[in-house]
Amino acid sequence: MEEFLRNNRALILAYDQGIEHGPSDFLKNKGWDPEYILELAEKGPFTGVILHKGIVEKYVDNNFEVPIVLKLSGRSKFNPKLKQSLVCSVKYAEKLGVEGVGFTIYPFSEYEDYMLEKLREVHEEARESNKTLFVWAYPRGKGVDEFKTENIAYATRLAAELGADFIKVKYNHKKKEYDWVIKNALRSKILIAGGKKVEKEEDLLNMTKEIISLGAHGLAIGRNIWQREESEALELAKKLAKIIFND
Amino acid sequence: MEEFLRNNRALILAYDQGIEHGPSDFLKNKGWDPEYILELAEKGPFTGVILHKGIVEKYVDNNFEVPIVLKLSGRSKFNPKLKQSLVCSVKYAEKLGVEGVGFTIYPFSEYEDYMLEKLREVHEEARESNKTLFVWAYPRGKGVDEFKTENIAYATRLAAELGADFIKVKYNHKKKEYDWVIKNALRSKILIAGGKKVEKEEDLLNMTKEIISLGAHGLAIGRNIWQREESEALELAKKLAKIIFND
Amino acid sequence: MEEFLRNNRALILAYDQGIEHGPSDFLKNKGWDPEYILELAEKGPFTGVILHKGIVEKYVDNNFEVPIVLKLSGRSKFNPKLKQSLVCSVKYAEKLGVEGVGFTIYPFSEYEDYMLEKLREVHEEARESNKTLFVWAYPRGKGVDEFKTENIAYATRLAAELGADFIKVKYNHKKKEYDWVIKNALRSKILIAGGKKVEKEEDLLNMTKEIISLGAHGLAIGRNIWQREESEALELAKKLAKIIFND
Amino acid sequence: MEEFLRNNRALILAYDQGIEHGPSDFLKNKGWDPEYILELAEKGPFTGVILHKGIVEKYVDNNFEVPIVLKLSGRSKFNPKLKQSLVCSVKYAEKLGVEGVGFTIYPFSEYEDYMLEKLREVHEEARESNKTLFVWAYPRGKGVDEFKTENIAYATRLAAELGADFIKVKYNHKKKEYDWVIKNALRSKILIAGGKKVEKEEDLLNMTKEIISLGAHGLAIGRNIWQREESEALELAKKLAKIIFND
Amino acid sequence: MEEFLRNNRALILAYDQGIEHGPSDFLKNKGWDPEYILELAEKGPFTGVILHKGIVEKYVDNNFEVPIVLKLSGRSKFNPKLKQSLVCSVKYAEKLGVEGVGFTIYPFSEYEDYMLEKLREVHEEARESNKTLFVWAYPRGKGVDEFKTENIAYATRLAAELGADFIKVKYNHKKKEYDWVIKNALRSKILIAGGKKVEKEEDLLNMTKEIISLGAHGLAIGRNIWQREESEALELAKKLAKIIFND
Repeated sequence: MEEFLRNNRALILAYDQGIEHGPSDFLKNKGWDPEYILELAEKGPFTGVILHKGIVEKYVDNNFEVPIVLKLSGRSKFNPKLKQSLVCSVKYAEKLGVEGVGFTIYPFSEYEDYMLEKLREVHEEARESNKTLFVWAYPRGKGVDEFKTENIAYATRLAAELGADFIKVKYNHKKKEYDWVIKNALRSKILIAGGKKVEKEEDLLNMTKEIISLGAHGLAIGRNIWQREESEALELAKKLAKIIFND
Repeated sequence: MEEFLRNNRALILAYDQGIEHGPSDFLKNKGWDPEYILELAEKGPFTGVILHKGIVEKYVDNNFEVPIVLKLSGRSKFNPKLKQSLVCSVKYAEKLGVEGVGFTIYPFSEYEDYMLEKLREVHEEARESNKTLFVWAYPRGKGVDEFKTENIAYATRLAAELGADFIKVKYNHKKKEYDWVIKNALRSKILIAGGKKVEKEEDLLNMTKEIISLGAHGLAIGRNIWQREESEALELAKKLAKIIFND
Repeated sequence: MEEFLRNNRALILAYDQGIEHGPSDFLKNKGWDPEYILELAEKGPFTGVILHKGIVEKYVDNNFEVPIVLKLSGRSKFNPKLKQSLVCSVKYAEKLGVEGVGFTIYPFSEYEDYMLEKLREVHEEARESNKTLFVWAYPRGKGVDEFKTENIAYATRLAAELGADFIKVKYNHKKKEYDWVIKNALRSKILIAGGKKVEKEEDLLNMTKEIISLGAHGLAIGRNIWQREESEALELAKKLAKIIFND
Repeated sequence: MEEFLRNNRALILAYDQGIEHGPSDFLKNKGWDPEYILELAEKGPFTGVILHKGIVEKYVDNNFEVPIVLKLSGRSKFNPKLKQSLVCSVKYAEKLGVEGVGFTIYPFSEYEDYMLEKLREVHEEARESNKTLFVWAYPRGKGVDEFKTENIAYATRLAAELGADFIKVKYNHKKKEYDWVIKNALRSKILIAGGKKVEKEEDLLNMTKEIISLGAHGLAIGRNIWQREESEALELAKKLAKIIFND
Repeated sequence: MEEFLRNNRALILAYDQGIEHGPSDFLKNKGWDPEYILELAEKGPFTGVILHKGIVEKYVDNNFEVPIVLKLSGRSKFNPKLKQSLVCSVKYAEKLGVEGVGFTIYPFSEYEDYMLEKLREVHEEARESNKTLFVWAYPRGKGVDEFKTENIAYATRLAAELGADFIKVKYNHKKKEYDWVIKNALRSKILIAGGKKVEKEEDLLNMTKEIISLGAHGLAIGRNIWQREESEALELAKKLAKIIFND
């Protein structure tokens, strides 16, 4: 776990959108290109980068020094089922030599059962092979409000009870209630999703201050970084790092 | 089995609500915090404590002396399916070094088949690795009255026939009929669920006297304990212990 | 196979009703109590007794000398699916040291496919570990008449073609047609289910004479025995044995 | 493969109807009795016989010299699903010491996916254990005309592409089009199903001449043989053999 | 991967239509006959040929020198489910000694989850046994436009992220947008499907020039080749090779 932390905080560059959202996220700048992402990861103040196996195989070489979270689950946004499939095994993650593995669960959805059972396998194999476990915990399903504090707190709690080291959740901007989410992460580290590119950079910086003051351990951020030009992206990353790591 | 018994009776502190009910159970006092629970478990007269693996991994150290029941199944209360998933393997329970394992079945529900088959695996692996097996046996399903004595007795019988060492059931306060449930537990030990926090402590004490006099072996109790302040909680636990263990 | 036969006939005491029917079958006398059943099995002229694993584990000791059929499948009568689950493995049956294993199929039902595939595994493992295989073959499903001779004969034939050593079926009291069922058991032994407790003992004795004269190999009988007081039960068993074994 | 051929042709006695059709096929003569079938197989000019495992286990001894195709799949005719289950493993076929294994697929049906995947396993295990693979390829499903030449040719092609050694199909009596089916069997041998007992023996002989002239490698025939008395059955078999093997 | 490339380009002869489309594709000329296909593959300028296992087993001998892509998935065109089944294992592909393996996914369809999970296994086993991985990536499902550039690019991206070496996609003739598909193949090689036989050869040659100029690595082409007479087919292949390999 320590390899993804600095001052007990983390700033992770997320790049699993190629599967989750498809190339439409990459229309601006060079976001489509893994080379660009790996460059940002190395030049910026990131404590980790999230990638799928196809990219690790074909782009990452031995000199790459940023710790990698290999995303093990995936689902296209057009898939009619609210169900994440296992698209990479922990065993293969081990062969690729990454430091962490990631898995998404949708508590409260019709396939909650499937994802909890897969998470079980992933967790136990991650422990065996000494990989840090990241869990994306997003409340989903018919009639489920994914931004209700109770729901986010419940999803977080599930991930914590099931052994996540890091839990990635969304921030609902309910400053007064959100402490309940943080508490229910127990001793797992909470990462807030960066989400869509914000209109005003200021908003992102303020959100980051807010979630850090609430007790979160950092951000997992993608589009807000790589939908920008390199210099602008690295500039922003530095500002976020200042807030997060207290640099 | 003996490690969870005192005078052939048991008082087990239940803390699997983080998955079954979510954090809404923890709104009062420090119930959300596993540290508080472990403290209560050690200071109180409990013969065991029920936990999920994430908590055992990150909170329990070698000095902890209360026997642990690792809950192997789980389902969020918003899951549209009446189906418990296997969220921890017996093999991993063994690695964690716990004394017992727990699994929930919903007889009569649409997924009865799934849960009976999973229970089979869990039971046989528990025997192999010498873990005491706790089975939660709750009648559920369309049109199923979960408090009808016949249904509770049937669910209990299923658990007994399938090899449970302890069977956790609910008490329906039908004093004159409930003996039928106890009988159908055969040589398995019957634990009554504590349930929601009662308004008057007296009610809980009376229920405990009643179920003990009926032949039950004790309680698996959570909210009635950890939704209280420590001193009050331990006070109550002592009173329950007096009834149960004849202290 | 020989261990369950006397004069090439069998009289098996059935006690799998705790799962199949629930405790409502045990309301009369001491039928609920496995101790009573094991006592009857030992004192009576039975060539075998059918039990689930929980009972074998906790009640049967090394001195028990009646051959045991461990029932490997189960389904509560309130389960909305017409599907038997595997509730015990052949491997575990081997550990328990029993002589036979039993499995129920519902030919013609929606889950016929599942049960035939499970039966395949059970059969092949039973051969490997040298256990006698008992198959309950009950025609079931939408619009299926379970007492039509053609259906019983078909179910019987399926069990025979798939390797059953003993086939347990129901008798439809169609004396003139039933020979067709017996023929289609091929070289498997046919056991007739005792069914619900009869009003007049005479009826049971007559049915037994009838099925033996038709070529059946005996009875698998439960409620008609253990819903009676011990002396009455053993008396009846003796009468049945006289018919079956020609004592 | 050679063990089932004479002059590159085959005449196989089919006896898997006990599962596929049930005992209603056996109402005439002694067709119900495996002893009768094995006798016919040995006395007649057959190059193979198709049996299920229960019959091989209990009826076939070491002196039996006709090569056996063990049917590995099965489905009762009343099963609401158009799905063949695996009722015997290749591994068990090996233990029984048979020469070939058989599997049915229903291309175009709702469970095509399941049967193709099972066929994959069966094929690969058959190769490993050196068993000849027979595939029944019957077009089925909603709105599927199982006698359309295109459909039979497609089903045949599927079996050939997936590695069948012998392919059993039905003849639709479209003499001018059927060559297309034969071609699409590629280098697999084509066996035509004998089907229901014909009214006039002449019709069967003519069909046999026709399919042989079209390039088929022979027949897999059951009811037309064993629904007759022994002498008549063997007489007919001899006539078929004359056509097929050019005796 | 190199074995399928010349000048970093590929021209692959596709012959998996026997399963995907059935024999109706083979009505013209000798396309139905694998011998013809293997002859074309050897005489023409192809860098690979796509075959199913039944054909490799029975037609390919040691002297055959064209690299083979063994197609591992399959589905008849009449199958009501949009789901590819695994019809050959990587392990068996290894036994057959082929150089590559192929698998089809239908992103956005109801069975996307199934195909992504199977692709995972295939990819990881292909890596282990050193086989080049070809992925057919066809957007499918209710309301899914399979020729929308966004959809093709998304499907391509999924295949690239999941580790494909070659990705086979369709060309939608949107010259100005298609570069987006090529980019999202990342470092995987893009093969364009030849599709149905074109009316005018010119159209195919123009399409080939177009896709090569857009950055594709070549064609996987079947019907446009083997629905022609040998001389005409080889003539056309030579022209395509000239465009693709810059001969």
